[in-house]
Amino acid sequence: MALRVGVSGSPPFVDKRADVYEGISIEVWEQIANAEKLEYILVPYPNIDSNIKAVADGKIDLAIGPISITPDRAAKNGIEFTQPYFYAEEGVLVPSQPPGLWTRIKPLFGVAALSSITFLLFTLFCVGNLIWLAERKRNPEHFPPQYIKGLGNGIWFALVTLTTVGYGDRAPLTKAGRTIAGVWMVISLVSVSTITAGLASAFTVSLSQTQLSRIMKPSDLDGELIGVVTGTTGVSLARSYGARPLPVPTLKEAIHLIKKNKVSGLISDKPILSYYMKNNPDKSLKLAPFRLSLQTYGFVVPSDSPLERLINIELLRLERSNQVQAISDRLLK
Amino acid sequence: MALRVGVSGSPPFVDKRADVYEGISIEVWEQIANAEKLEYILVPYPNIDSNIKAVADGKIDLAIGPISITPDRAAKNGIEFTQPYFYAEEGVLVPSQPPGLWTRIKPLFGVAALSSITFLLFTLFCVGNLIWLAERKRNPEHFPPQYIKGLGNGIWFALVTLTTVGYGDRAPLTKAGRTIAGVWMVISLVSVSTITAGLASAFTVSLSQTQLSRIMKPSDLDGELIGVVTGTTGVSLARSYGARPLPVPTLKEAIHLIKKNKVSGLISDKPILSYYMKNNPDKSLKLAPFRLSLQTYGFVVPSDSPLERLINIELLRLERSNQVQAISDRLLK
Repeated sequence: MALRVGVSGSPPFVDKRADVYEGISIEVWEQIANAEKLEYILVPYPNIDSNIKAVADGKIDLAIGPISITPDRAAKNGIEFTQPYFYAEEGVLVPSQPPGLWTRIKPLFGVAALSSITFLLFTLFCVGNLIWLAERKRNPEHFPPQYIKGLGNGIWFALVTLTTVGYGDRAPLTKAGRTIAGVWMVISLVSVSTITAGLASAFTVSLSQTQLSRIMKPSDLDGELIGVVTGTTGVSLARSYGARPLPVPTLKEAIHLIKKNKVSGLISDKPILSYYMKNNPDKSLKLAPFRLSLQTYGFVVPSDSPLERLINIELLRLERSNQVQAISDRLLK
Repeated sequence: MALRVGVSGSPPFVDKRADVYEGISIEVWEQIANAEKLEYILVPYPNIDSNIKAVADGKIDLAIGPISITPDRAAKNGIEFTQPYFYAEEGVLVPSQPPGLWTRIKPLFGVAALSSITFLLFTLFCVGNLIWLAERKRNPEHFPPQYIKGLGNGIWFALVTLTTVGYGDRAPLTKAGRTIAGVWMVISLVSVSTITAGLASAFTVSLSQTQLSRIMKPSDLDGELIGVVTGTTGVSLARSYGARPLPVPTLKEAIHLIKKNKVSGLISDKPILSYYMKNNPDKSLKLAPFRLSLQTYGFVVPSDSPLERLINIELLRLERSNQVQAISDRLLK
């Protein structure tokens, strides 16, 4: 007799298109059923909790989908979890404000930028003195012997060389002067490119940090109203971080709440959130830069059912040969 | 009656100091036993396979340690795995030569760098000659007809143009001279950036290559003699990558084989390898830059034992409250 297999959950794990089911959980189950030559029919359930209940009530032989293995579910009578087939992180989707003007130019006034500029001014001063010393006797027209005027022209010459502008209104004649200038040219080439590289990375770092949203670390969830999808582990997880969960039936509705500023964020599984963002790009939303906890997904079978060992062996084989990884890479990429 | 708990495995999971057992597996078990008020005695076993066999033979009530959940073990009669409590990657420890000072600056004297600098000096010489030939008649003030002095100023002019400094203390008047200078300016722009880019990549390549070891990607394992610790999953994993496993009783002995160049590397769990490297820093060894497969560790109980559900519920609770993560962070950091 064909196995009755309850199915529930959202893409990329369970994706119902017309009458065909696709997704990571479906493909992993299909590979197990093929390997063990099991006949089965898929029975849809509205959400994960009802799918598990049907196993406990004996209405179906097992439940498949992105079913997080949690203490409360493991404690339910009449059911058992197989070994996990997927390791997902819980994430938080939050509104993201693009960085304002000040946050964009802030690196220019950072310690790194200011210290390298001061160091540069100091070296200009030294090169100015050296050139003046080398040229003041044989080249008084470009570098007057009188110290203040001479040094002024020396520093002007060093700056004109540093930036490779090189007007040539001032240029060294003596061998010593030309050697100093030659060395200074090469140093300038290297130091100007290092400073540009330093500034470029400072901008990238500061831009990536500043996409401000109220929720930047798990403790920021405390006291916040957070959207969660009914029947998922997001509800208990939100509470465990001190947030007030607001359950809504679907992912779409929960995301709608964020955009209307009704909730400060949405807790769900990262693969499901990133899959949604991939298919519905939206600059005003982003995944918060941390994970809440590692979730494992498993299938659910009746307690002491022979199916558990059979599924476990095949599932572990699929994992060790990286086939589960191949399925999720294909569907998540 | 107190539970008989079989224990086996290496640090950081099982670490026997005098008569006290420490480690990640031990602490996770202790937290479960405390929460469920279970009395137990620890029974040591030499390796994981013998520990599992004792459960199947009914000599002990459960087995704890870094026990990878594999298809072969899941298929053994009389035993079952709990849910996993740890997710480890399998890694390969390989010999590595750390880059000395010479290897870091070698690119500067590499064929690429020396040839481009010689080529540059040669072109400076040619441009200097060309400019002198073009300008000496109509522009003797900048490029004196007398060969040595004229050529000196020609090369100075070519250098000042190459580095885009361009003082203008020497500048071409004739059409031929300006054509030569114009072409040289464009060539300089391209060649200076090519040389800088070439040097930058030569440095990166040479640094990444110097940490030479024969095994840089999984396929390099094919045909190699690889050390593994007896009774661990490293044996079957080595074979699945085409390597020839050489089992030795302990991690220390396996590492000794690498240092004596008897084996090309050692396959073991990454946490165990990085824990060993942390406590025995050794610049001549390093972890290969890839993982072989994701391993999960679980405890082993007799089939259909009530312990399975009880341990699973408590273990999932520890995980969801990040306590397992806290234990491994503390012991691995």
